[in-house]
Amino acid sequence: MQYVITAVGPDHRGLADPIVHCVTQLGGNIAEIQMYDHDEASVFSMLTRVELDPANDASLRQSIAEISARTGLSIRTWMPRRLDRKPRLAICCTLRTETPRAVLAAIKSGEIAAEAAALISNRQTCRGLAEEFDVPWHDIGRPDGSADDERMIDICDELGVDYVILARYMRILPPSSCWKYAGGRIINLHHGLLPSFPGMRPYHDAHAARMLTYGATCHFIVPELDAGNQIINQTTFTVAPGTSRDEIIRRGEQQNEPACLVEGVRRVVDREVALHFNRVVALKV
Amino acid sequence: MQYVITAVGPDHRGLADPIVHCVTQLGGNIAEIQMYDHDEASVFSMLTRVELDPANDASLRQSIAEISARTGLSIRTWMPRRLDRKPRLAICCTLRTETPRAVLAAIKSGEIAAEAAALISNRQTCRGLAEEFDVPWHDIGRPDGSADDERMIDICDELGVDYVILARYMRILPPSSCWKYAGGRIINLHHGLLPSFPGMRPYHDAHAARMLTYGATCHFIVPELDAGNQIINQTTFTVAPGTSRDEIIRRGEQQNEPACLVEGVRRVVDREVALHFNRVVALKV
Amino acid sequence: MQYVITAVGPDHRGLADPIVHCVTQLGGNIAEIQMYDHDEASVFSMLTRVELDPANDASLRQSIAEISARTGLSIRTWMPRRLDRKPRLAICCTLRTETPRAVLAAIKSGEIAAEAAALISNRQTCRGLAEEFDVPWHDIGRPDGSADDERMIDICDELGVDYVILARYMRILPPSSCWKYAGGRIINLHHGLLPSFPGMRPYHDAHAARMLTYGATCHFIVPELDAGNQIINQTTFTVAPGTSRDEIIRRGEQQNEPACLVEGVRRVVDREVALHFNRVVALKV
Amino acid sequence: MQYVITAVGPDHRGLADPIVHCVTQLGGNIAEIQMYDHDEASVFSMLTRVELDPANDASLRQSIAEISARTGLSIRTWMPRRLDRKPRLAICCTLRTETPRAVLAAIKSGEIAAEAAALISNRQTCRGLAEEFDVPWHDIGRPDGSADDERMIDICDELGVDYVILARYMRILPPSSCWKYAGGRIINLHHGLLPSFPGMRPYHDAHAARMLTYGATCHFIVPELDAGNQIINQTTFTVAPGTSRDEIIRRGEQQNEPACLVEGVRRVVDREVALHFNRVVALKV
Repeated sequence: MQYVITAVGPDHRGLADPIVHCVTQLGGNIAEIQMYDHDEASVFSMLTRVELDPANDASLRQSIAEISARTGLSIRTWMPRRLDRKPRLAICCTLRTETPRAVLAAIKSGEIAAEAAALISNRQTCRGLAEEFDVPWHDIGRPDGSADDERMIDICDELGVDYVILARYMRILPPSSCWKYAGGRIINLHHGLLPSFPGMRPYHDAHAARMLTYGATCHFIVPELDAGNQIINQTTFTVAPGTSRDEIIRRGEQQNEPACLVEGVRRVVDREVALHFNRVVALKV
Repeated sequence: MQYVITAVGPDHRGLADPIVHCVTQLGGNIAEIQMYDHDEASVFSMLTRVELDPANDASLRQSIAEISARTGLSIRTWMPRRLDRKPRLAICCTLRTETPRAVLAAIKSGEIAAEAAALISNRQTCRGLAEEFDVPWHDIGRPDGSADDERMIDICDELGVDYVILARYMRILPPSSCWKYAGGRIINLHHGLLPSFPGMRPYHDAHAARMLTYGATCHFIVPELDAGNQIINQTTFTVAPGTSRDEIIRRGEQQNEPACLVEGVRRVVDREVALHFNRVVALKV
Repeated sequence: MQYVITAVGPDHRGLADPIVHCVTQLGGNIAEIQMYDHDEASVFSMLTRVELDPANDASLRQSIAEISARTGLSIRTWMPRRLDRKPRLAICCTLRTETPRAVLAAIKSGEIAAEAAALISNRQTCRGLAEEFDVPWHDIGRPDGSADDERMIDICDELGVDYVILARYMRILPPSSCWKYAGGRIINLHHGLLPSFPGMRPYHDAHAARMLTYGATCHFIVPELDAGNQIINQTTFTVAPGTSRDEIIRRGEQQNEPACLVEGVRRVVDREVALHFNRVVALKV
Repeated sequence: MQYVITAVGPDHRGLADPIVHCVTQLGGNIAEIQMYDHDEASVFSMLTRVELDPANDASLRQSIAEISARTGLSIRTWMPRRLDRKPRLAICCTLRTETPRAVLAAIKSGEIAAEAAALISNRQTCRGLAEEFDVPWHDIGRPDGSADDERMIDICDELGVDYVILARYMRILPPSSCWKYAGGRIINLHHGLLPSFPGMRPYHDAHAARMLTYGATCHFIVPELDAGNQIINQTTFTVAPGTSRDEIIRRGEQQNEPACLVEGVRRVVDREVALHFNRVVALKV
């Protein structure tokens, strides 16, 4: 059975050794291991993907709990290929309702074979969706408009969330959150074509470049600022010359973005794709 | 009636005055005028778009001929909105047959309401198309693989060509050719999305960027190296993760590029779009 | 004698004809002519550089005044090579004092052979410089922090300003202002290397790219958003690995930027460089 | 004592476990560990930086030799902070002599406190330098102009080379070579400012962008195509408008590039900077 273990700690010393010891003593094999040390952001972290006999599952969890208690490391153990239940999704949103609604509807219809564990937001705009689709609503907004990033992670931990879906969620996750759910568990919908239009206003940027093609990109978040974009799905639409920017944005937000995100989440949930050494690989072609 | 007059000369002195005099003396109005002086490339040129009473057409042509004879300027007068005949196209190609074939077929079927005046190439690969579609074939290739750029212009002049279609024509037109047919008369098919992937190998570049979206761009050539891209049409297709680059190129060359160019040429021929002060504007929305 | 004539009007019709007629009837030669039509910004403008017998100077000015009165066009006539007086500079600033101080000091010392006609600002921070160097102070700030762009142009018109110096002036000039003083009369100091770091925070961007080289760029403003950068001078400094961003900004603002701008303005005032068909050319090499 | 251990193998399975076991059994601490798996390039590799009691040095080397023999992994153990001898440099060059000459001269004069272990080239142009500075010459060129990349690594292994200096070496090292000498041991001189001008012709590109600033960049090679540039030193020079491109290239190649590389190599050899988790960090500020 494959396990993905992530650890975030106060410095880079003592980060790798206890987990590596634990895994190798249980007879596990290290399939991938990455460390990250960024003094400026005070983020020190490790990801390792290991193969371990499922008979040792309880021993692994006990050892990890002991390491966590002894060292103060924030450690998570995730099984990407568990078969005993559907994947649990936390859907994060802010102001736009189209993409979270589309994911919730696709779960309800069975197109996405997952469970909607939570709708998390830093604003009130999408609260009605929680009631409509009968999904627990979690408000992590602060009075100043920012979000309680640690609360988001706590919610996901408590609910046993497998994947965090950023459905036009307008806040940038801090590196520590990205590392805690590293390994291909955070899926973002960007409302422009990556890597060409990465900014906050990709429709405006593409329009200013006089393009007639607009698109959306569904990708894994990888917890390094410099990393390339790990694209899971892209969808596009083209317009005739003279189409107004407002009309372009309307078509993008109402039709193209929801379709892009739903298909991207479906590919991950159905394990057609996965993150492997920071690259998206096709598991079934 | 609108006329587009282009002039290319040996220096920038004496370039504008005689033509401006001629037009204003005939009672014409200057709707647009641009000059270009690039010492390094030894290209000095002017474009003016004027409105003139068609009754003065013969006088204009006679005056321009006299100016040309007296000054040595290379001057062309073009009527973008003539109604007495279909636009004449010169289709330029090199090695790939898909896009020139698609344009020829669309002319034959009537989808593009134009006349195929010539098939021009610097290689022999597409010669069969000329026979198949009964279009005059012009070989402008030189033994070293380059093209006789002046011969291309001479052919277009002799045949009264309205639009030059670059259908995966693999040579870069010199600035003097671009200026001689300036004003929205040269239409290029680029086999990538502009402005994101401008190079010689856009499929490879987009693939290296791990994109899942590929596209083609049909645009006017504007005779300044620094100018933005004047996009007439863009078409895209998306692929699943894991699709091979060869398969992507195959789909792009065989399906996407021909469709992109045919629709782009149709928009120009049907005067749905035109070049106006270096921008593409929609004439009918 | 060379004249640069700029015209800004309510549409592109009727923009070129009256000025072209006037110049050619006075026996002038058109050395350069450019028109610009941008519906979205409602800016329609023309620049022409002509050679005219100075004996016709009064006739030119009278004719232009009549055209302006009759058509409502906003027309300016500028003589870039006048010898009867030193060039007059309007120095525009906002919050940083280093670069305007350096220009004022270089004028006082004679390094820049010009006259400081005005210190213009949308903030109060640099007011002390006006008193210190005995230069008229013009406050064009509005309560909301923006600037009265038309007032800036009015001041420059009234004072017979030859060159507008943007010395870390933090507002973007509207296209109409750029066109009114087109032809190489607006000189900007950008606090980063162009074209690599064009944004509002070039020190931050270069630091984020882990560069060890930082620079400043003095360039002509050319009134088209898409135009390349017309660089008059660039200066750089390099730092050792580990140098803090604050220290880098301090060195840039206090030492590098002032030196860059002073030398750039000197090159223009001494007519070592000029703008010629949107390119910077060296007049004396 | 710090050790950097790199391993390159035929697949990613079995890459990490034996080395991790060996190090932890000897009581070492893992300070950094990275793995890389790129199926397309068939490169599978690992880097680990460990702290180990020097008393275990012989045990480490013996264990590594056994692992290498048993698994077929290509493993290297490097001590970046050894004090018993000067660092040994392999200087790689192709056609230009200025930068390799400058490094050799700086070693001879003592400015760079290192030993020139070898001059390696795929061409004959720099052979005279080997004789002049009495450094062993190694020709790794092939008849077709390419280089024997494996021979380069063999030479460095045999000579106990600490750092590989690419002094305008015109071949791209394969990923396997980069990984074998990973950890901040390969130093490149790029003849343009990074990251702005990364291509093969940075002087031409910056000149085409009308820049007046030109530069060179000395950086560590990091064995992932997508990685940012790890800059050790940058030097620049500025030119007056109108300076010819040939003159710019002459100044760059003869003055700026040699100075940039010599200072960069000196910083590494004097351990003022080092590579730490893919970033350049200042060790003494």
